[in-house]
Amino acid sequence: MVNLSPDTDTKSTWSSGYLYDSPTIRCFSHIHAWQLSGIAVMPTVGTMQGHLGMDAYQSRFSHEGEVAEPGYHKVHLQEYNIGVELTSTTRVGFHRYTFPRTDSAFVLFDTGAYLAHGPTEHSEVRRVSDREIEGMAVMGKTIRRPKETPVYFVARFSKPFAHFGGWQDSTRLTQAVNRLGGKHAGAYLHFQMTDQESLLLKVAISYTSLANARSNLEAELPHWDFDRVHRESTDQWNAMLGRIRVEGGTEAQRVKFYTDLWHSLLGRRILSDVNGDYPDMTGPRPQIRRVALDAQGQPRFPHYNFDAWWGSHWSLNILWSMVYPEIMDGFCNTMVDMYHNGGLIPRGPSGGNYTFVMIGDPAVSFFATAYNKGIRTYDVAAAYEGLRKNAFVGGIRDHAGYEHRSPAFGGGMQYYETQGWVPEGIGGPGGHKDGASMTLEYAYQDWCLAQLAQALGKTDDATLFRQRAGNYKHLWNPATRYMHPREKDGSWIADFTPVVDAFNTRGFCESNAAIYTHYVPHDMAGLIRLFGGAAAYSAYLDSCFIKGQPLGFVGANKKHASTWVDYGNQPGTQMAHLFNYAGKPWLTQKWVREVKMAFNDTTPYGGYDGDEDQGQMGALGVLMAIGLFEVDGGASTQPFYEISSPLFDRVEIKLNRQYYEGERFVITTENNATDRPYIQAVTLNGKPWRQNWFSHELFQRGGELHLRLGTEPNKKWGTKPPPSLSAPAGRR
Amino acid sequence: MVNLSPDTDTKSTWSSGYLYDSPTIRCFSHIHAWQLSGIAVMPTVGTMQGHLGMDAYQSRFSHEGEVAEPGYHKVHLQEYNIGVELTSTTRVGFHRYTFPRTDSAFVLFDTGAYLAHGPTEHSEVRRVSDREIEGMAVMGKTIRRPKETPVYFVARFSKPFAHFGGWQDSTRLTQAVNRLGGKHAGAYLHFQMTDQESLLLKVAISYTSLANARSNLEAELPHWDFDRVHRESTDQWNAMLGRIRVEGGTEAQRVKFYTDLWHSLLGRRILSDVNGDYPDMTGPRPQIRRVALDAQGQPRFPHYNFDAWWGSHWSLNILWSMVYPEIMDGFCNTMVDMYHNGGLIPRGPSGGNYTFVMIGDPAVSFFATAYNKGIRTYDVAAAYEGLRKNAFVGGIRDHAGYEHRSPAFGGGMQYYETQGWVPEGIGGPGGHKDGASMTLEYAYQDWCLAQLAQALGKTDDATLFRQRAGNYKHLWNPATRYMHPREKDGSWIADFTPVVDAFNTRGFCESNAAIYTHYVPHDMAGLIRLFGGAAAYSAYLDSCFIKGQPLGFVGANKKHASTWVDYGNQPGTQMAHLFNYAGKPWLTQKWVREVKMAFNDTTPYGGYDGDEDQGQMGALGVLMAIGLFEVDGGASTQPFYEISSPLFDRVEIKLNRQYYEGERFVITTENNATDRPYIQAVTLNGKPWRQNWFSHELFQRGGELHLRLGTEPNKKWGTKPPPSLSAPAGRR
Repeated sequence: MVNLSPDTDTKSTWSSGYLYDSPTIRCFSHIHAWQLSGIAVMPTVGTMQGHLGMDAYQSRFSHEGEVAEPGYHKVHLQEYNIGVELTSTTRVGFHRYTFPRTDSAFVLFDTGAYLAHGPTEHSEVRRVSDREIEGMAVMGKTIRRPKETPVYFVARFSKPFAHFGGWQDSTRLTQAVNRLGGKHAGAYLHFQMTDQESLLLKVAISYTSLANARSNLEAELPHWDFDRVHRESTDQWNAMLGRIRVEGGTEAQRVKFYTDLWHSLLGRRILSDVNGDYPDMTGPRPQIRRVALDAQGQPRFPHYNFDAWWGSHWSLNILWSMVYPEIMDGFCNTMVDMYHNGGLIPRGPSGGNYTFVMIGDPAVSFFATAYNKGIRTYDVAAAYEGLRKNAFVGGIRDHAGYEHRSPAFGGGMQYYETQGWVPEGIGGPGGHKDGASMTLEYAYQDWCLAQLAQALGKTDDATLFRQRAGNYKHLWNPATRYMHPREKDGSWIADFTPVVDAFNTRGFCESNAAIYTHYVPHDMAGLIRLFGGAAAYSAYLDSCFIKGQPLGFVGANKKHASTWVDYGNQPGTQMAHLFNYAGKPWLTQKWVREVKMAFNDTTPYGGYDGDEDQGQMGALGVLMAIGLFEVDGGASTQPFYEISSPLFDRVEIKLNRQYYEGERFVITTENNATDRPYIQAVTLNGKPWRQNWFSHELFQRGGELHLRLGTEPNKKWGTKPPPSLSAPAGRR
Repeated sequence: MVNLSPDTDTKSTWSSGYLYDSPTIRCFSHIHAWQLSGIAVMPTVGTMQGHLGMDAYQSRFSHEGEVAEPGYHKVHLQEYNIGVELTSTTRVGFHRYTFPRTDSAFVLFDTGAYLAHGPTEHSEVRRVSDREIEGMAVMGKTIRRPKETPVYFVARFSKPFAHFGGWQDSTRLTQAVNRLGGKHAGAYLHFQMTDQESLLLKVAISYTSLANARSNLEAELPHWDFDRVHRESTDQWNAMLGRIRVEGGTEAQRVKFYTDLWHSLLGRRILSDVNGDYPDMTGPRPQIRRVALDAQGQPRFPHYNFDAWWGSHWSLNILWSMVYPEIMDGFCNTMVDMYHNGGLIPRGPSGGNYTFVMIGDPAVSFFATAYNKGIRTYDVAAAYEGLRKNAFVGGIRDHAGYEHRSPAFGGGMQYYETQGWVPEGIGGPGGHKDGASMTLEYAYQDWCLAQLAQALGKTDDATLFRQRAGNYKHLWNPATRYMHPREKDGSWIADFTPVVDAFNTRGFCESNAAIYTHYVPHDMAGLIRLFGGAAAYSAYLDSCFIKGQPLGFVGANKKHASTWVDYGNQPGTQMAHLFNYAGKPWLTQKWVREVKMAFNDTTPYGGYDGDEDQGQMGALGVLMAIGLFEVDGGASTQPFYEISSPLFDRVEIKLNRQYYEGERFVITTENNATDRPYIQAVTLNGKPWRQNWFSHELFQRGGELHLRLGTEPNKKWGTKPPPSLSAPAGRR
């Protein structure tokens, strides 16, 4: 819930927060989540300038002496000669400020500040005692978050402040007050400090009430031992990151690996309080609900916040289901709660509301993967009911980007249901109205739903949705040999090229035909048949990578649609793994390694190219580094992992025994080096293993996968493709 | 929190709820509190008519077979042949409906109905399962409650319903839905019932959230044993009402007595949930706060709702401080919380907000009485700070009736502070702008504050406010020999008469000069001096009662200002007790008995004449019946009780030993009869007692007061008046 860190930049959805090269710190704020921000705090010395805003009171800082670790940030404010250290519990930010000797120390609570996403509509602060203040701020609506959203806070200081004051309408209040509020409001606390005296500050937040903010504070942080909280936070992060232990590789590769893994855990932002209360924004009026409690009265899972799951079947769905099944379970619970609350399983649970960001129903792959891997601690019947509803007119697929409670539907489901594909120019509300992307994603999502139906014994549904999963074929144009968008009259759109110059192209969502043509995760055998067989397909796919490599496997100038391979956005992040399905696993081994090496920057200037998307790109990096992937997202009734060559000598995955039987799954390599990506031979639990995939059933029992690598491909190994839709289920 | 009973009448602040002679029951609703109403439920048989409103679906009923007791109501709906029984826990209404055999049984949740005070702005209902629904309704603003106020509910049935449906905009929904909402919305549950089959329904409410409504349900009513809840509710009421046990008198007198006592307990409506959460409406945005918890994490006191305390110093302040100190303590806690929240101690805590109903600061007498009787489990320093603030410009006194957050102040405190009295025609916001009533009430309230200051060792403040307590003298006009309102220029208002024909008269709040002239509870000695001595005063006062008796001691046609004695409204309910201060206690004994006999109706047609005001008139009746009173409201640093003749042979008051030392205080009489009101002799704890008062200190230790009564006055007994302001404090 609390993510306390310096804000060098504000007033932007995409470029606010901590930007490494910005010269000043404007404040330290407590949320930094998708569509959510709030409670900016800044210590200063000298004239109180809170009412003048961050441009006035910001401070220069340098990276010298700065420490930034999970659970701890230390930085020096040069303007004020104040040392700042930050740590937190789940719901309480903990600040330690070391001041110079001064009679004019101030701690500013710039509650009305514009931090990110949009302006703060209103805020209030009240003096509770000479050590405590409380208040709230109301985030204004955004295009993605359609309701005003309050955040409440309670803040306690380790020593009494001499004076409470503040500002409203950017004007400093001159009279003594105990409370203040309105637009552009904030409070300051005035202290006298001796030299190098430390001031501690605890700030607890809640999205439901002041009472719950105070309970969060008292439950999580009753003491004043900053070093203990820092230590406990470090321990907690080490336990989470330690679920995967890697050995070998270079120092930079290990840094990159754990940076990626850390990213994969950043999206699980919590909205619910210690007692389980969370804001339900799905209805016409905001309501406070409580998550399910266990027999001890403790919340079984928190209520989570996230962006849309769009594309997560090639990243988080795989990684979380392997390593953090409890997180996946919690998100399933959150989404089922939202179905109960608002009547739709969301595209991604965000701020207690539907955001309708992007297109399709990516939650169905999330649930199918969870369920089929045995992650089921939620109301499965309700989940299926909601996901089935999403597959028809009026479900979540039918709400295209940013469409909020429109009486019409903009997701093209009436076309998809009647003719099996969505044309271009469908009109109606919402953005991202790309018929070809919709068609391809809907077909995959139908297959995921079929897998869930099959597992639940709903065989009629399974047959229906398996049939609909073949709908991708409606877009195959044998003339262009691409997935080719169609007009409403069924004709292929004119002026078609597989790559284009604009950011968004007709038919495709943030991508192009070159990339979306490979978007058949559930029936690679079928796609390969359309291409005329494995040899033709793999040759063409190889040519895409050859063309994409000089651009670093991303679009030129971040234009996703301008290239043949794009690892800067979700729709094509499976492509290197597709050679496994075309009888040429050594090309998967090669291109996975090449892509991984292209994304090897551990400086603040590289790492991800574009929107990291709540850990999706980090999770993808982890999967490529450990050499396991699931092109179908893991959604099939019998999930399995495809093998590529890991970066490391040893990868040990600690299994969560609340879900899985084994203690650990270990991947070891011999003869590994950056220029030796090719698998020579494999054993699984000591026995020779000739296929390029193995089942989740074996994974979850624990075991060891051993790979011998080399500089040249072994073209005999692993050439039989993994199962896909066209293969009878029994063959898996 | 829940007060579940039949609603025969709706759409009125003053005439909604259960009116005995109304022929139909429109619904059973769950709140029935001051300014709060909500969640109307009605079982019906036959065509579903919920969307047509109560005029359509109401049912005739008769009083035959009806049972109405504290904690239980049983009534038969003739239209539908449904037996209805109602009981409740603190926060959960429990319904038992006995249906005829039918395929068309419906339970209507008319959540959007206009019940009382004002329309419902918006409501929502959601089907949770086939046995559970949940929802909320938003009460619109009223002149007294300036914010929209939501109430949430969770309802569970003992058997599954066959169908969930409802209406919006008074139009029945034809499509299947799981949720509905908007204006004029409601839901119905459809059941098939066999003959005489019982359907049980639990409805929990909360003013903060659905989650808390559900927690209230689960904490208070986890089972389905209706008879057990009925029994427990009866036991709880018996325990509360049994704090005073009376013997002797007539059956009608005992019925009236316990009816009065029951009324005195009805005002303590609870806003807070099982976990202590309550809505704080004092600020610009509603917020949820939590009351203080004890070491076990349980709320120390609930957050209460009430009307203004206006006049409660002659009723509830006395009774609660004697018999229910824990309720008084809880209300003090609630008001201190509101001071912390909103910066003002309220005139009465209402719906989490200030209502600014009536005038003055009646909370100061409430607190002074509580504190001086040892009821102190709250933040006393904050209470004093807030009460002191109330005594100056900008405090609660300065917000005259219904004035909400006006930038100006309409309570006349700038006049009072500078010249010691409030003139007429002061202008500014608010209603009830009566300078003479304000002046007289403010003077008494200053004295209460002085008593609190004195007890807290704030001697400078005590001197200041004791001095201001003499301000009533500014209104004494020696020419008219009344408290005479004054114009801004200081002149006496023209066309002055002590009683008038209109409801509201210039200068006086819902009363007249005849009655307010006696409003000097804290300095009867001073008032008597103005009248020229005890003989003159008691003769005049006696003449008022003689003139008032033919009208039953109330105004003709409920016009409070039209008479000389008015026991139908607060400002004059001390008058019969004032003879005790004028050396003629036998006239107090006489007129108290006469007034008590005038209010002896135990049918539904009499009992109280006018607004019962949240138990104030009931409490007054109890005090008159047991023969104890406190003209100064009990606020003095050494509180004492004045003696009149009780109605009963024996009155046993069980003391709350968490506050008081003794176990019981007993009042016994001999030779008592309706026509023998006169005290002949008194003993206290077996020793002769010659004064007409005794100290709270003696009361709280427990003991026995024994009175011998007779048909003729004993004019020797008790002629020395009780202490009042003009007497040195030490003499008490």
